[in-house]
Amino acid sequence: MASTTHAYQIADLFAERARKLAPPTYGTELSKILSVSFTYGLADPILFPHADLAAASAAILFEEAPIGLNYGPPSDQLYEQIILRLQAQGIPADRDRVVIGYGSSQILSLLPDVFIEPGDVVIVEGPTFLGVVARFVHSGARLITIPVDELGMDVDALEETLSDLKKKGIRPRFIYTIPTFHNPTGTTMPLFRRKKLVALAAEYGVVVVEDDAYGDLRFQGETVPSLASLDREGWVLYVSTFSKIIAPSVRLGWACGHQAIIKRLAMFKSEEPVRPFISYVLGRYCATGKLAHHIQELIACYNHKCNLLLEAIAQEFPSDVVALRPDGGFFVWCKLPPDISAKALLTASAEHGVTFLPGTGCYGNGQGDDAIRLAFSFQPTQKIVEGIATLGEVLRQWE
Amino acid sequence: MASTTHAYQIADLFAERARKLAPPTYGTELSKILSVSFTYGLADPILFPHADLAAASAAILFEEAPIGLNYGPPSDQLYEQIILRLQAQGIPADRDRVVIGYGSSQILSLLPDVFIEPGDVVIVEGPTFLGVVARFVHSGARLITIPVDELGMDVDALEETLSDLKKKGIRPRFIYTIPTFHNPTGTTMPLFRRKKLVALAAEYGVVVVEDDAYGDLRFQGETVPSLASLDREGWVLYVSTFSKIIAPSVRLGWACGHQAIIKRLAMFKSEEPVRPFISYVLGRYCATGKLAHHIQELIACYNHKCNLLLEAIAQEFPSDVVALRPDGGFFVWCKLPPDISAKALLTASAEHGVTFLPGTGCYGNGQGDDAIRLAFSFQPTQKIVEGIATLGEVLRQWE
Repeated sequence: MASTTHAYQIADLFAERARKLAPPTYGTELSKILSVSFTYGLADPILFPHADLAAASAAILFEEAPIGLNYGPPSDQLYEQIILRLQAQGIPADRDRVVIGYGSSQILSLLPDVFIEPGDVVIVEGPTFLGVVARFVHSGARLITIPVDELGMDVDALEETLSDLKKKGIRPRFIYTIPTFHNPTGTTMPLFRRKKLVALAAEYGVVVVEDDAYGDLRFQGETVPSLASLDREGWVLYVSTFSKIIAPSVRLGWACGHQAIIKRLAMFKSEEPVRPFISYVLGRYCATGKLAHHIQELIACYNHKCNLLLEAIAQEFPSDVVALRPDGGFFVWCKLPPDISAKALLTASAEHGVTFLPGTGCYGNGQGDDAIRLAFSFQPTQKIVEGIATLGEVLRQWE
Repeated sequence: MASTTHAYQIADLFAERARKLAPPTYGTELSKILSVSFTYGLADPILFPHADLAAASAAILFEEAPIGLNYGPPSDQLYEQIILRLQAQGIPADRDRVVIGYGSSQILSLLPDVFIEPGDVVIVEGPTFLGVVARFVHSGARLITIPVDELGMDVDALEETLSDLKKKGIRPRFIYTIPTFHNPTGTTMPLFRRKKLVALAAEYGVVVVEDDAYGDLRFQGETVPSLASLDREGWVLYVSTFSKIIAPSVRLGWACGHQAIIKRLAMFKSEEPVRPFISYVLGRYCATGKLAHHIQELIACYNHKCNLLLEAIAQEFPSDVVALRPDGGFFVWCKLPPDISAKALLTASAEHGVTFLPGTGCYGNGQGDDAIRLAFSFQPTQKIVEGIATLGEVLRQWE
């Protein structure tokens, strides 16, 4: 019956979308003698609240294992804690307006399922967090980029774009923005821009996806209300995560917004209906009230590292490199002098064991070779000082 | 600028696939006075190895937190343990041929991304596990159902179908099968059928997706080699999970097969590249060697419950109800006498607080009203006896 020689190939069975393998979202580090990496937006692993998580895990496993290890929805306690956090930010949150996922990255990568047909327009910031935006492109979205300046997204440019698109009969699906401690520039959008952005969303009928991964980590300045807290019509979808304030590997993020969107995000989550063990552990941990204190510790540490980085830059970098001081978050964005290419600088510095993210890694269109992103978050302080000294030397050789 | 009254609706922004909300995969229990549920394929929560998982969690959190709680791929130790388990079953497994996901349900629901364009043919068993098959339908697959008898899928009927399809120029994308302790019938496909199925896959160039969620839980009879262990050309994709042998909420499953498929499953996993904490915990737990012993305990318990259920059926059910004795797994499939409808029986028995899965919940086409699936796995033994006594009474009222 069967023949072992046949002309069939497995590859012929793949759907069109699966024919070509997508490139990995993250590159590999260039240097084999890498000593200091400023490349990734990682939390400092020393600060993971491991002992408190161990206590919460043990409590769940010894007191609630039959429920906490079984099928079912995520922990009610975790929902409550997340809803309390959202409400404390002035965001109208309730159980029907919140969905929990495996990190905000899962939720953000479900957006195409809900919103994008091939050719649909999505508006993103330039520069932006390309790890997420690449997913939108992969599902066939046509990107339009709005520039970011020292005050975040240029909402006047956005208004012009929305108006032009409307004249052409095009309604974008959504606007992806990181208004607070922006990745990669570290900038925070002030209230007047936020109000205008939310108003534009309503005027043009476009969803605003507010990615707030870093918002808790403010070192200085006044808190600015989230877009979601300014929105009363449901156009803003707020997305956040425990990756920066607890630990990335707990894989727990959430979205809050219009019920119709939340229901659809839940529908496309492949693992529904399940009750991840970790949601029980995190619900228990948050309910101890220790998270608020932990966040204060994180802020003190990251503020210190940020200051150290900026001081080192002031001492070691040529004066025509312009570093933006962030009010919080993980990143310092540096504008390079006109004659220096970020990619060439990376090649040179990697030979000395120091890496960072060139601005080109923050645009989908090759732009950004005039800037670099330095993540000060996960290197030990001594490494920060060493790394900036090395990078300064490499920069000065250009002059 | 903005107007608060506008004609825009969020719903207009949804992609076609997101317009209609899909019905929930699992129904809700019918009875409010529910006392015994035989409905779901759940592990017994009393048997979750909570103390050993707590020990493994503490070990990871106190010894490896900076790595185990950070970004990165799943634990190397877990990969090793899974590969060892696969190799022990004669499946050619190595790191490039294995992908880890959030439960086998995540992996199975990624299959449409890799294989299905709307209208493509997928072959499934009838009856089958509809929770997964509904995902295939949702992505536009056209299902063809091959009947299951006491020896699993009827591979002669499959051969006929494949041959007919080939004459029409149709090459199915894949065949979804549960050859061992089948859900819902409990049957196990014997070796001669397995060999023919694997040969047919190669002859017709069709992938076979072997779902082996229950394979470890054999009470009696000789182990039958998995389809994947019989396949040397890469047509079989083997999928399994820790949900039945450790706990569902750890959300850890894996697939092993042709590199080209594994790479694509990894590409569509929305949360790559991350290192779930739980993978570290499970890697550590499995490496203690305690899982093998734990599985022996599970087998003893489920064997006991299965025997209890079958004895109760023999005593309490009318003799024209035919129960299939499984060699392992969670389910007993009962054929009803011609005059009894499974759905009507459920309505009647739910009023007495006893529920089960009517056969119609195992077919996509309304078939199955002549059979019921009884899960003996998660009810305490006393409840099993009580539930069958009640169900027997309801059945006898029909006569």
